Amino acid sequence: MAGKSKLIDARLPRGFEDRGPAEIAALDAMIATIKGVYQRYGFDPVETPMFEYTEALGKFLPDTDRPNAGVFSLQDDDERWMSLRYDLTAPLARHFAENFERLPKPYRSYRAGYVFRNEKPGPGRYRQFMQFDADTVGAPGPEADAEMCMMMADTMDALGLAGKYVVKVNNRKVLDGVLEVVGLGGHENSMRRLAVLRAIDKLDRLGTEGVRALLGQGRRDESGAFTEGTGLPEAETDIILEFLEASSVASNPSAALIPREDPAFRDIKGGILWANPKTLTANNALLFNNETAAQGLLELDSMRVLIERCGYGPDRIRIDPSVVRGLEYYTGPVFEIELTFPVTNDKGEVVVFGSVGGGGRYDGLVSRFRSEPVPATGFSIGVSRLYSALVSQGLVSTSVPAGPVVVLVMDRDQTPRYQEMVSRLRKAGIRAEMFMGATKNFGKQLAYADKRNSPAVIIEGSDERTRGVLQIKDLVVGKAAAAEITDHAAWTEARPGQFECDNADLVIKVKELLAAHARDAGK
Amino acid sequence: MAGKSKLIDARLPRGFEDRGPAEIAALDAMIATIKGVYQRYGFDPVETPMFEYTEALGKFLPDTDRPNAGVFSLQDDDERWMSLRYDLTAPLARHFAENFERLPKPYRSYRAGYVFRNEKPGPGRYRQFMQFDADTVGAPGPEADAEMCMMMADTMDALGLAGKYVVKVNNRKVLDGVLEVVGLGGHENSMRRLAVLRAIDKLDRLGTEGVRALLGQGRRDESGAFTEGTGLPEAETDIILEFLEASSVASNPSAALIPREDPAFRDIKGGILWANPKTLTANNALLFNNETAAQGLLELDSMRVLIERCGYGPDRIRIDPSVVRGLEYYTGPVFEIELTFPVTNDKGEVVVFGSVGGGGRYDGLVSRFRSEPVPATGFSIGVSRLYSALVSQGLVSTSVPAGPVVVLVMDRDQTPRYQEMVSRLRKAGIRAEMFMGATKNFGKQLAYADKRNSPAVIIEGSDERTRGVLQIKDLVVGKAAAAEITDHAAWTEARPGQFECDNADLVIKVKELLAAHARDAGK
Repeated sequence: MAGKSKLIDARLPRGFEDRGPAEIAALDAMIATIKGVYQRYGFDPVETPMFEYTEALGKFLPDTDRPNAGVFSLQDDDERWMSLRYDLTAPLARHFAENFERLPKPYRSYRAGYVFRNEKPGPGRYRQFMQFDADTVGAPGPEADAEMCMMMADTMDALGLAGKYVVKVNNRKVLDGVLEVVGLGGHENSMRRLAVLRAIDKLDRLGTEGVRALLGQGRRDESGAFTEGTGLPEAETDIILEFLEASSVASNPSAALIPREDPAFRDIKGGILWANPKTLTANNALLFNNETAAQGLLELDSMRVLIERCGYGPDRIRIDPSVVRGLEYYTGPVFEIELTFPVTNDKGEVVVFGSVGGGGRYDGLVSRFRSEPVPATGFSIGVSRLYSALVSQGLVSTSVPAGPVVVLVMDRDQTPRYQEMVSRLRKAGIRAEMFMGATKNFGKQLAYADKRNSPAVIIEGSDERTRGVLQIKDLVVGKAAAAEITDHAAWTEARPGQFECDNADLVIKVKELLAAHARDAGK
Repeated sequence: MAGKSKLIDARLPRGFEDRGPAEIAALDAMIATIKGVYQRYGFDPVETPMFEYTEALGKFLPDTDRPNAGVFSLQDDDERWMSLRYDLTAPLARHFAENFERLPKPYRSYRAGYVFRNEKPGPGRYRQFMQFDADTVGAPGPEADAEMCMMMADTMDALGLAGKYVVKVNNRKVLDGVLEVVGLGGHENSMRRLAVLRAIDKLDRLGTEGVRALLGQGRRDESGAFTEGTGLPEAETDIILEFLEASSVASNPSAALIPREDPAFRDIKGGILWANPKTLTANNALLFNNETAAQGLLELDSMRVLIERCGYGPDRIRIDPSVVRGLEYYTGPVFEIELTFPVTNDKGEVVVFGSVGGGGRYDGLVSRFRSEPVPATGFSIGVSRLYSALVSQGLVSTSVPAGPVVVLVMDRDQTPRYQEMVSRLRKAGIRAEMFMGATKNFGKQLAYADKRNSPAVIIEGSDERTRGVLQIKDLVVGKAAAAEITDHAAWTEARPGQFECDNADLVIKVKELLAAHARDAGK
């Protein structure tokens, strides 16, 4: 084949990546920990395929400025459009509706899987990435939402992130109430409402002035790119920003949970948990007379009672009314996990690590398939992002896993003998292989074993074969000794870590060596 | 959302499927067993994404009568075509070529992952399915091929299939020699050669006469569908069929490995292992004077020596010259795992279960990316098919995994109390949840716990709350007792499996109950 045609470029399309053994082992361990928590919470695994009918997925992605609205789609033989899933929530809604009669209700499930976004890739931004979701379908009350927040907190603890995260909670109804007050209620304003919510969602990143620009006439960023604004009049923009300022945890973290008994709030419907009461003005008081906002506040308060009763303080779960979550389908409580430790970003600035997942209540999603209402709530962890957080905190091992014992090929015509030794080691449960490369060079074979992080190599030349013995070279001890012995003659004399044994004792001697390594590693 | 628009059909596109908790647990266990064997053999995991550039994948699928030659493809923003991988071998070749400098050589890797075929779905034939591959890249010798066969055999043993499989081995060079003899050598005949190989591949399913028709003028099946033939003249067809007959293990299974010392073969170059020497004629002898066939026979014999030396008899690994494997890229040894136990097929006929995987040497695949030759060999297991084999033999558990302890909601306004009980159980490592559904009905809540396969439910009504106690209802004991007590009055009196305890003793009592269940299950 080669030679006849031009060589093909060996690379992946942009936004896709490979994973090697160290990362796979660390990710597997992380996923097993998360699964352990979800299992303990009574959730069962479910798996759906990568493809769904496009109409079953719906269009709920925040960024719609890309072809197919950010989704990979293609037409099936029967002309119907299929898409690769862009999250794990829409497929779950389809799965539940399809298996409605058979499934337990409420239906608690979790799943880790790849999702696809046909978006412009960038650093840390992939077109295939893993999400790990948990959802409760058929549970209408705030108990299910509160449980999601507690499960997120317990998951972070289980991963070793205790004290380094906060689960932030809000309710879309509160925000909807704010938008009703500024005249953006009703079905006819749904697209504009979404634009306003997405502007609010950027508060952390762009600050008050950035959001003000996005809500008004638009914003030009440092690169000169212009994002259109929502065109909201200044008076309405003020109401929204004042609400955000008043409720921002950032402005008064220690007062994150203000109980309803506070006299400053007793006249306000559902008035609770405001972070910074001093900045509340007549405009804000107006909000709390809105029925939608009041309902949202009551739900938030029910969640607060449940969460406090189970012993989670505001250091772990905290109500923060600036949380939005970008997806259109949320209908009530929304929440996100923020990692609070500092990292340095691309521009060299020190910032908090930020969100590694979130979710909320989506009572309308299953009803797209069924005539009766089906309430549901859930959350999603961004696996790659959480993984890089664990790496940055030294909470996962990123070293190459232990390699096999390598039997070197000293004489090409003796491969059946060498392979038989390997076979004996494997039967004893020891990770082992014969060197399979084309080279006869001893040094190159040793270098291979080193690269594989092998504990030892086995050597049988013609002399050893005649005498019925083998050389076992301990690569771990050898490496340690090499660091100490600097004199070449002394090295050749001592040959640290290398010893001879009877061919018949191969398995016993290798087992002893591995046990010694395990003891040393445990020290 | 609902009510306003028409309901969406909740179903998957054809050829895709969901998986529930029982199947996921069984598949996970099966995959862990396979990984264990591959790890022991010195292979490391690697993972590649679902998408590759179309040209990197190449076109090697056996069925080309579907759009995009059986591959899901779409055009990227920059007009380049990307495809979903249709196997795990082509992506591995790309990965190795892309990371050539960095990777150990030989490079031993394994990976389980979904692949996609844009083919007509049917029973047991999916458009997304899982393969589990292992490959050694950079190993030129038959040792690497022999090791693949032994690893396949060990994997079947580890899964509990000892005595129920055979790994069948052949070499494409032998078949290439046969085709040269009938005048189909050379690059100009490559497409025709492939058609002949694919006809031979159907010997098991269609028998000699079916293959004769496919090699000649074509074949009409029972449904009336016509498959075009290769148009080979009758004399050439005879040579091929006689070769297959002579070498068929089916015709003489006990003589699967005839050593080269047999006087009937000593004059034939590389003459070995023929199953049925009596049917060999002058035509066959002619084959063995072909250089290509002789090379293939020598390689097969080297593999035989290695395999025998490691203690694998012909009951586990056997040479069978009718094995072809459909993929175009194989260049030497080919092998497949056949499960030999009987099953009843769709037509009610008793047949052997058949192939669950296979592979071979593909020395040309990596060279598509690099100018130097890079030998490689590997095999692939069809995970779903192997899984159904294990199910049919009762070798995996397909029962619903144990559910959570369920705290029932007796009073809606006491959910913080119930959630706190759940929280205590979970902190003790016990799988638990509060009932989250809308219903207050006791029977429906119990039915939910039953459906979840829960070990017990916890009941606290107002009476219990006043007295500081709880009722624990043991659902396992309850179910067993229900089978024995037929009198309703006696049942109400005895209330088997239900007992009271102090609220403070909840965790201790549930632990005792779970321990008792574990003991009973171990009996």
